Amino acid sequence: MIVEMRKGAEKAEVDQVVAKARGLGFDVQINYGTEKSVVAILGSDTGSVPTDFFALLPGVESVQRIMKPYKLASREFKPDTTVATVAGIQIGGPQIVIMAGPCAVESEEQVFETARAVMKAGARILRGGAYKPRTSPFSFQGLQEEGLKILSRVKEALGIPIITEVMDTHEVELVARHADILQIGARNMQNFSLLREVGKTTRAVVLKRGFSCTVNEWLTAADYVLAEGNENVILCERGIRTFEDSTRFSLDVSSLPVVQKFSHLPIIVDPSHPAGRFDYVPALAKAGMAAGADGLLIEVHPNPAQALVDGLQSLTFGNFEKLMAELSPLAQALGRFI
Amino acid sequence: MIVEMRKGAEKAEVDQVVAKARGLGFDVQINYGTEKSVVAILGSDTGSVPTDFFALLPGVESVQRIMKPYKLASREFKPDTTVATVAGIQIGGPQIVIMAGPCAVESEEQVFETARAVMKAGARILRGGAYKPRTSPFSFQGLQEEGLKILSRVKEALGIPIITEVMDTHEVELVARHADILQIGARNMQNFSLLREVGKTTRAVVLKRGFSCTVNEWLTAADYVLAEGNENVILCERGIRTFEDSTRFSLDVSSLPVVQKFSHLPIIVDPSHPAGRFDYVPALAKAGMAAGADGLLIEVHPNPAQALVDGLQSLTFGNFEKLMAELSPLAQALGRFI
Amino acid sequence: MIVEMRKGAEKAEVDQVVAKARGLGFDVQINYGTEKSVVAILGSDTGSVPTDFFALLPGVESVQRIMKPYKLASREFKPDTTVATVAGIQIGGPQIVIMAGPCAVESEEQVFETARAVMKAGARILRGGAYKPRTSPFSFQGLQEEGLKILSRVKEALGIPIITEVMDTHEVELVARHADILQIGARNMQNFSLLREVGKTTRAVVLKRGFSCTVNEWLTAADYVLAEGNENVILCERGIRTFEDSTRFSLDVSSLPVVQKFSHLPIIVDPSHPAGRFDYVPALAKAGMAAGADGLLIEVHPNPAQALVDGLQSLTFGNFEKLMAELSPLAQALGRFI
Amino acid sequence: MIVEMRKGAEKAEVDQVVAKARGLGFDVQINYGTEKSVVAILGSDTGSVPTDFFALLPGVESVQRIMKPYKLASREFKPDTTVATVAGIQIGGPQIVIMAGPCAVESEEQVFETARAVMKAGARILRGGAYKPRTSPFSFQGLQEEGLKILSRVKEALGIPIITEVMDTHEVELVARHADILQIGARNMQNFSLLREVGKTTRAVVLKRGFSCTVNEWLTAADYVLAEGNENVILCERGIRTFEDSTRFSLDVSSLPVVQKFSHLPIIVDPSHPAGRFDYVPALAKAGMAAGADGLLIEVHPNPAQALVDGLQSLTFGNFEKLMAELSPLAQALGRFI
Repeated sequence: MIVEMRKGAEKAEVDQVVAKARGLGFDVQINYGTEKSVVAILGSDTGSVPTDFFALLPGVESVQRIMKPYKLASREFKPDTTVATVAGIQIGGPQIVIMAGPCAVESEEQVFETARAVMKAGARILRGGAYKPRTSPFSFQGLQEEGLKILSRVKEALGIPIITEVMDTHEVELVARHADILQIGARNMQNFSLLREVGKTTRAVVLKRGFSCTVNEWLTAADYVLAEGNENVILCERGIRTFEDSTRFSLDVSSLPVVQKFSHLPIIVDPSHPAGRFDYVPALAKAGMAAGADGLLIEVHPNPAQALVDGLQSLTFGNFEKLMAELSPLAQALGRFI
Repeated sequence: MIVEMRKGAEKAEVDQVVAKARGLGFDVQINYGTEKSVVAILGSDTGSVPTDFFALLPGVESVQRIMKPYKLASREFKPDTTVATVAGIQIGGPQIVIMAGPCAVESEEQVFETARAVMKAGARILRGGAYKPRTSPFSFQGLQEEGLKILSRVKEALGIPIITEVMDTHEVELVARHADILQIGARNMQNFSLLREVGKTTRAVVLKRGFSCTVNEWLTAADYVLAEGNENVILCERGIRTFEDSTRFSLDVSSLPVVQKFSHLPIIVDPSHPAGRFDYVPALAKAGMAAGADGLLIEVHPNPAQALVDGLQSLTFGNFEKLMAELSPLAQALGRFI
Repeated sequence: MIVEMRKGAEKAEVDQVVAKARGLGFDVQINYGTEKSVVAILGSDTGSVPTDFFALLPGVESVQRIMKPYKLASREFKPDTTVATVAGIQIGGPQIVIMAGPCAVESEEQVFETARAVMKAGARILRGGAYKPRTSPFSFQGLQEEGLKILSRVKEALGIPIITEVMDTHEVELVARHADILQIGARNMQNFSLLREVGKTTRAVVLKRGFSCTVNEWLTAADYVLAEGNENVILCERGIRTFEDSTRFSLDVSSLPVVQKFSHLPIIVDPSHPAGRFDYVPALAKAGMAAGADGLLIEVHPNPAQALVDGLQSLTFGNFEKLMAELSPLAQALGRFI
Repeated sequence: MIVEMRKGAEKAEVDQVVAKARGLGFDVQINYGTEKSVVAILGSDTGSVPTDFFALLPGVESVQRIMKPYKLASREFKPDTTVATVAGIQIGGPQIVIMAGPCAVESEEQVFETARAVMKAGARILRGGAYKPRTSPFSFQGLQEEGLKILSRVKEALGIPIITEVMDTHEVELVARHADILQIGARNMQNFSLLREVGKTTRAVVLKRGFSCTVNEWLTAADYVLAEGNENVILCERGIRTFEDSTRFSLDVSSLPVVQKFSHLPIIVDPSHPAGRFDYVPALAKAGMAAGADGLLIEVHPNPAQALVDGLQSLTFGNFEKLMAELSPLAQALGRFI
């Protein structure tokens, strides 16, 4: 922590900062400069102390942290990249894992049909929402437990692992019984009770980025899951909210190299939500892959014009097949495979 | 809903849009323009149908909704302004209700001392967090149930009603037993399970605006609480996330006249979180009041430099007293009182 | 400047940072910590050296500036608040100066009529645009020189000073001949050639905040005008671009206490542009005033429904008169006057 | 234009809207709905009329435009993609054109050395700034005319075309004498005088996106250049300003498919400015290419740690060569070449 004193701060004020830091058990380095004095507060545990302890002392201009706010998710803590394993599929290794399926589970027939189509085109994991976080209480809220059962039957019949969202601490146990991967949606990235609860399960967790959360906050949220002992955390970039309104969200591809520099966790990209329209999905899927994604999470529907949720951003089977044919050589050019 | 056809769309394509709309039970108004045709889809219930049903039909350029996404929170639904009553105090009437207290409950002594100080200066409701949503699992998480008990004892002893945050569906019943107002924090504005749960209680609910949510989304979230039958919903503007980094958040005073135009719900302002520093709080408190706030929610601490959470943005007793002395004539100039 | 070394950086790497700093004439303070070493680079002129000089040295994790990027606009440079004087009117003193008039000059009659109405209601300065920055080349671009002449005639006849926008270095001299205050629009806040040019005139300059510029960038832009010797710079907060779309821009009232803490320059508020609609203007005008504005810049039009530019956000004469009647007691409650 | 009447608006109010529209020469389509009436105003020229003409009429709830605000830049105006030709190099065709060089021209030796290195690695156009828009007047402002002469000499000696920035209307003629492509920087995207001036030259123009401008505003700005008769306009996505602070800007890859859908203009990507750090540049360069860029604009410097401007985001010769070796197979996988 770096404490910058105000221009003209008195020595007694500097001393008070120093005393406070030493009282908390930290080392201190002081420079009595010509214009401004600066106090560096050092120690491996300064992150646990609020900067405000110092910012409010007399004569202090500002306090800046040097340490990152996250620990368990950091590459300093674990230098080797984490590879999450889900039903024998590795996420974070050389393979770029495609997860595809409908936004919402609507019927057994719909899920079977979609699963067969995306598997044929090369997807390895099936997505489908049973619990749907909807902005309005008057919108379709998902088939809930019935949806989970449909997913389970499809998984059993076709042998494809399942990723599905969990929205509430009450439902974690139930969802974990059916799903291979628990998805935490963007609106729940900082639902800390929920993060703790999925951290207690043995399922892999896909943690979507909150659409207005920084990379630092995202990795700190991952700490909640990791702290409970669940190490199979996969990050998912899905776009951030900006002023631009021609797309639903702005896919922040920059977050991929940043995450890969500072964290050991694997990261996938959801191109469907930022696109908001099916015809922008291919460009965003390719961009995400080229930026370094370990997987893609893509919405596919047998008949998007009849979809109960997010039809406009869903690919038809034909469009998905076409996209997969384009992604495959791209993966190779990047030294990976699908 | 307004469906704009592409330049050169064929009549058969327009007909398909019309047939779809009529099939869903809507009225239709068509204009076969020289350049572009436009189809207006009309009816009181178009809000329940996804725009994507039409956006994906061949020949369609775009679809725009005309109806607002919220219903129960709208002034169209209930023209008269709602006045929430909490322990005999009216929020949404001529009085501007000041709620003040520490960010987090730290000890019984701290809460008693603060309650006495803010009551003396004119605050009518005591704030204090027992459950704290912290970005890191390694930060202080609040005294939890013990904190609630402290708040209850202070309330009983001094007769001041309590507002405190609830973070998880599991805790709603417990918190509602102690608190007069349940606060939904910004990070939980779209935690729909939690909204439903507080909607089932008889307590007033302060719904903080998500820091990246639009006014439309905020009012639609209020619909979740209202739909359960709880009509005592109070909105709280607490700043939005923008690119500006000299303050913690940007207080969006514009949301006040917008909310008051389109919704019947009362609205208060939290000047402490957007400020992020105690010395910016007075300007934001005054701005919020001048923009039309029905109340203010202000952080006050006996010794901010020792506060476990948000000390930098907390006012000392002296600063709070000074601010209250400035707010009083301002309220009068606005035709209201504190 | 604080240079944080990477965990495990070698002593030779630290030495290189130190040597670089000393070679540039700076003092250095080093701490060889247990986990990380930190080098503080000190001196009154570190602001003139790019942080990249150090960020690119081997073993460096990050470099942070402690000094603000602006100099002449800072309160450290000039502790006393600047009071700009325009035709005998003081901006930055106890009076809150109201500037009002049409967005665009459309005709001599329109300007005369408006000037009389706003003067009667208490405005002290007349606004009116002769050169209009329009997003499309096919929109009305202003009456240009003819507009300036109209403004001059009104000024001469009624004795009210004029504020008008200048958009191009070529026109500075011409505009300065007619106007008392040169307005730099938000889109030109970082048009550095233009800033230099108005800095060379003897006219007061209103520098509007770029709608996506930080307070730091705004004050640094003011340095361009101040560096040319023009000390009559008045800042104008006019809203920033955010994700919220119910208003045209989000008025950032937080910028007022921040500017007043770190800069000596006076600051006014334009409530019309962020509002985007006339019915939100009163709430924003009051909020701006309560947050500490030294003046307000308000759009008024004799017949907004016929206005060539920004009619929706313009007040009628009646609405302006009503607003002024409400602002006057507010100013008094704040210890000021209109 | 769609005019939505308020719930309960009277027929006389609807009639007034209709009369206004017909008076302006437009066709009108009315629906007297059960809850709300809607008036569609039709005609090829509604874009030239402010929506406020209608929004301010009594009984009107809202007015929405259906037409895009830009004309000449739209694909409706010109269906075939524009291919800009610069010194025989086609931008917008199958080749992905790499433009590389230093942020700022510092010396003849620096530019010669860099030009040779980037040409060898496969770059086709040399970038280099002679006029530098700097946020502070106390920073290095570029070598200006001397810088242009250096660029000219390198171009003559090595035969590589030049792209360089022009910042002021006064300098357009001079810069156009030396440069093959005139670059309009992000801060000048809405400097309309400058856009008009470069529109009058015969040079190709790279129009960088303003860092807080929407795609619609960007294409409308392009209309200014196109309206003067200059059809060689190339758009350049360079990142937008968001709340995320781990990178300098957020590269908005979504803008590429949007631009390509709605405009005929070619588009390139600058990965250096959004990255802000050299180690993020490769991921962003690849993402931009995969999203559909027709070219890349990359900062390269012989010795970034000594660069006067933007050293941290500049690639060394070695890093640039390595990146080019990775980009080449990627271009092939996308069906293009470098």
